[in-house]
Amino acid sequence: MTLSNLTTQIKNKNSFLCVGLDVDLDKIPAHLLKEEDPIFAFAKAIIDATHDLCVAYKPNTAFFEAYGVKGWQALEKTINYLNENYPNHFTIADAKRGDIGNTSTRYAKAFFEDLNFDSVTIAPYMGKDSVEPFLEFEDKFAILLALTSNQGAFDFQTKTVDGKPLYQEVLKTASQYKNSDRLMYVVGATKAEYLKEIREIVPNSFLLVPGVGAQGGSLEEVVKYGKNDQIGLLINSSRGIIYASNGTDFAKAARSKALALQQQMAELI
Amino acid sequence: MTLSNLTTQIKNKNSFLCVGLDVDLDKIPAHLLKEEDPIFAFAKAIIDATHDLCVAYKPNTAFFEAYGVKGWQALEKTINYLNENYPNHFTIADAKRGDIGNTSTRYAKAFFEDLNFDSVTIAPYMGKDSVEPFLEFEDKFAILLALTSNQGAFDFQTKTVDGKPLYQEVLKTASQYKNSDRLMYVVGATKAEYLKEIREIVPNSFLLVPGVGAQGGSLEEVVKYGKNDQIGLLINSSRGIIYASNGTDFAKAARSKALALQQQMAELI
Repeated sequence: MTLSNLTTQIKNKNSFLCVGLDVDLDKIPAHLLKEEDPIFAFAKAIIDATHDLCVAYKPNTAFFEAYGVKGWQALEKTINYLNENYPNHFTIADAKRGDIGNTSTRYAKAFFEDLNFDSVTIAPYMGKDSVEPFLEFEDKFAILLALTSNQGAFDFQTKTVDGKPLYQEVLKTASQYKNSDRLMYVVGATKAEYLKEIREIVPNSFLLVPGVGAQGGSLEEVVKYGKNDQIGLLINSSRGIIYASNGTDFAKAARSKALALQQQMAELI
Repeated sequence: MTLSNLTTQIKNKNSFLCVGLDVDLDKIPAHLLKEEDPIFAFAKAIIDATHDLCVAYKPNTAFFEAYGVKGWQALEKTINYLNENYPNHFTIADAKRGDIGNTSTRYAKAFFEDLNFDSVTIAPYMGKDSVEPFLEFEDKFAILLALTSNQGAFDFQTKTVDGKPLYQEVLKTASQYKNSDRLMYVVGATKAEYLKEIREIVPNSFLLVPGVGAQGGSLEEVVKYGKNDQIGLLINSSRGIIYASNGTDFAKAARSKALALQQQMAELI
């Protein structure tokens, strides 16, 4: 998918919502466990119920890998279902990968070619030659962890390096990598006030923002500090939407939660 | 596997060699491509030819994931083959995972429970609550990236934080995490002189050292600066061993390369 297609979707839908598909068999409605592939059955129902309200879906690979080969099959079915039925949605493999050059290329091929995701989240610690292999694929994007929404973010990400927090050093350095126009950045909503400085370093990039809702971040603040001319934001909500109910009405309940977020977004843009 | 079992294996074999299983269908001998599962066939042949010379095997998940569901099945077959036939070998899923708390738990379950690896490599960027979930499993280990062997290591890992390089801050901080006795660290051999200071921070931990051979590190220097009372080292070689030949003699050639390394190790300990 191209960036302009993503921006068009956002404007058409008045939404920059990303729905996180963290499918946990301990949390999905009990009646789905009788299905042949409960993980896919749940993901499909959530997608069908929310697709007109969001512009992106983000399966987190950990939840699929935890079920081994079956989980990987469910991930494949989920992305294939999205690509076949909703080709205008931006798809994110939330995998947080990264390795030395030739190995990062393998991960890029796994997510961009074998599974055909539009993007994958990656970790910055190994630097340039672990990131650039992901940026060699046309119309594919790597979403680099900059400032995450968890408590552990304060262990290293906010430590001072060359007079600024490490996450700003990551943004500044990565924005100089080859094909950095294919980079987006993960920035947690729980630190919305940091978005102002972040926008000075990467004014034109898309930011993927987790942590609105369940983790306490404010949508209004994120938009205030993080929006750019092209919107430039994808706000992710996972648990708050997909586990709104664990009864037979789960898809309808998920739709309500997604609709509430979409309506807030429409007011803010 | 317990740490004392690993140390016993090292002493019995006079070897602290780890063989990296980076199985690439473009590099394995052509005659294996006719096999039903060429990835597993190659891995099995390498394992059978080298098991008495090494104490650990490290499949890199990127190479398996690049082949989708089939790759994940091959990874499962490989770890099952190791656990069934060579239960005294220490197994490392080189996956470089890490995510917020509940999601890291899913990755830990994927590698420790579903696949039954002894250990998994993880990335430090997201901090404490991304690492500690991996440390809750008895006789399982997380191997944290500290100083990697690639050029990109100089982007962030060697930057100064609180008066010391970031990788030392990572070691110092992580060694205070709960159950840090289940932590090991990745330290690239291409910077062997750094091992002296690293040993002052984590004197008792195992270090997984990539980059000997193909990436230019010296085994002698690594042992000089990195060995502790219990040896405390696992030296990984991947391409240098497994792609020693791409003919029908590949397993024999891999054995020769592994034997040469094991003999050097025997002299050094």
